[in-house]
Amino acid sequence: MELWERVIQGDEVACARAISLVEDEREGYIELLKNLQPHTGSAVVLGFTGPPGAGKSTLVDKVAKSLRKKDKKVGIIAIDPTSPFTRGAILGDRIRMSDLNLDPGVFIRSMGTRGSLGGISKATQAGIKVLDAYGCEYILIETVGVGQSEIDIVNTADTVVMVMVPGLGDDIQAIKAGIMEIGDVFVVNKADNDRARKTRIEIEMMLDFNKNWEFRPPVSMAIASEGEGIEELVDNIFKHQDYLERSGKKEQRRFHRERIQVEQYVMTDLRDLVDEEIEKYEEKIRASVHGGSDPYTIGESIYSTIVRDEQ
Amino acid sequence: MELWERVIQGDEVACARAISLVEDEREGYIELLKNLQPHTGSAVVLGFTGPPGAGKSTLVDKVAKSLRKKDKKVGIIAIDPTSPFTRGAILGDRIRMSDLNLDPGVFIRSMGTRGSLGGISKATQAGIKVLDAYGCEYILIETVGVGQSEIDIVNTADTVVMVMVPGLGDDIQAIKAGIMEIGDVFVVNKADNDRARKTRIEIEMMLDFNKNWEFRPPVSMAIASEGEGIEELVDNIFKHQDYLERSGKKEQRRFHRERIQVEQYVMTDLRDLVDEEIEKYEEKIRASVHGGSDPYTIGESIYSTIVRDEQ
Repeated sequence: MELWERVIQGDEVACARAISLVEDEREGYIELLKNLQPHTGSAVVLGFTGPPGAGKSTLVDKVAKSLRKKDKKVGIIAIDPTSPFTRGAILGDRIRMSDLNLDPGVFIRSMGTRGSLGGISKATQAGIKVLDAYGCEYILIETVGVGQSEIDIVNTADTVVMVMVPGLGDDIQAIKAGIMEIGDVFVVNKADNDRARKTRIEIEMMLDFNKNWEFRPPVSMAIASEGEGIEELVDNIFKHQDYLERSGKKEQRRFHRERIQVEQYVMTDLRDLVDEEIEKYEEKIRASVHGGSDPYTIGESIYSTIVRDEQ
Repeated sequence: MELWERVIQGDEVACARAISLVEDEREGYIELLKNLQPHTGSAVVLGFTGPPGAGKSTLVDKVAKSLRKKDKKVGIIAIDPTSPFTRGAILGDRIRMSDLNLDPGVFIRSMGTRGSLGGISKATQAGIKVLDAYGCEYILIETVGVGQSEIDIVNTADTVVMVMVPGLGDDIQAIKAGIMEIGDVFVVNKADNDRARKTRIEIEMMLDFNKNWEFRPPVSMAIASEGEGIEELVDNIFKHQDYLERSGKKEQRRFHRERIQVEQYVMTDLRDLVDEEIEKYEEKIRASVHGGSDPYTIGESIYSTIVRDEQ
């Protein structure tokens, strides 16, 4: 039996192998994804994001357990920032330590970022396809930090859960302001902190700036480490799912997700091509450092080598 | 007189106009950059990065003042994260409030990220070229947060100053581990915090994992808000500059910086082309949502439309 057939039959070992294949972009990964594609489209993708230190891992763990109690098959992809130099994963063992690993109804995968812009997001999208075909009803994506590429990842989720934390510095508040708009559901974690109520009120106020919500993001409190507030959060996620179905927004989000995958696919291949070309211009670039050429002239030359004339 | 001529003669208004032109990529911006290129290459670029809330702005402000006392002409580019939805700058006024604005020997510019991956970095590189041609001897780049694209920016600096802060959560520590390797000079800001010494020791220990340093990054302490520890930091920056000159690494870093600009130039044009093509595939992408097509087949089709056959 082929690998893709074993995946859609719910073979866990095949699923793990398939994800490795697409993550590493090994021989045959595109064929695999093409074969899986007709068996995808039913999973609900939940993206968890928020500032570093907000306790996202613990929260994802508890939400997964709650979904398991409702007998849902769950997949988890944790984005694990990779050191840009050693290319090794930074968090690594965190995932492997979860007791969810013992539950056959949960598939957990940690994915490295490989230092390449966009590479994380591409691998994550492919991973979602595999887990979807494998039969996961909910796929939880957890990102560390607040970078643009991570925003891109959660931005393709059906529901974006914004995990906030009481009382951080000014920069964090600024970043919050930037990511507020992609949140569908908010949760203030570490609610036993003195400033949690204040943080919640601030979020509510920011949300109330927009008077034209079709679905006004609910804000709840949680202490993930104690398992408190998880059911309210899961209810809020379900409410947002209901809204997406009723309003036709679900179709829109999925269109967006497919479109991004097309773009990523083309752009990564183009980048490889450009890198190959650039190698041939080493002398020119060296001259450019001392004003003897410039990056724009060199760039124009490479562009016209790659692109068809009629473009 | 043409704009580029006024820039190289040190006309501040022309410099501001030139940066706007290249940042917005308005008509003629490439010609402008080509004309400025022979007048670049002498500025020293300092990149300041580190976790959100570390007090990078204040530190950059104080380092700029110290360089002014040494009679150096200084440029500052603060990367200002743009809300991905409203497209407005988040920090905005922070820069305009600095009293450095009154000093004609300092040129301060805040740059938005425009929500586009790589766009920040491209605009920053072009801004550096303008400030270099304008005569800035030191150009200080400040980034907010720790995203990949920000790592890309500081990674092209001559000296990367890693600003640390005592006692943050585990995720932050993990991110620290990821960015440790791009730091040339470390500073623990907010050194009046109880945990500052501990943080410093942790950093020293992490650095000592590598036994083969050609230039072992110095670690100092600062309370930027009080102006404490600034001279030691500036000395450390100078030491790193000396090392770069002596070892020939300066030339390597500048080659890398030029190369990245070539790549960015080609890739952004290719992205525009891809986006145009994708518009034509809306029906196919819609079918893909329900398994009737797939992003990989669509991607292959777009790729072969764009790229010359001989590639």
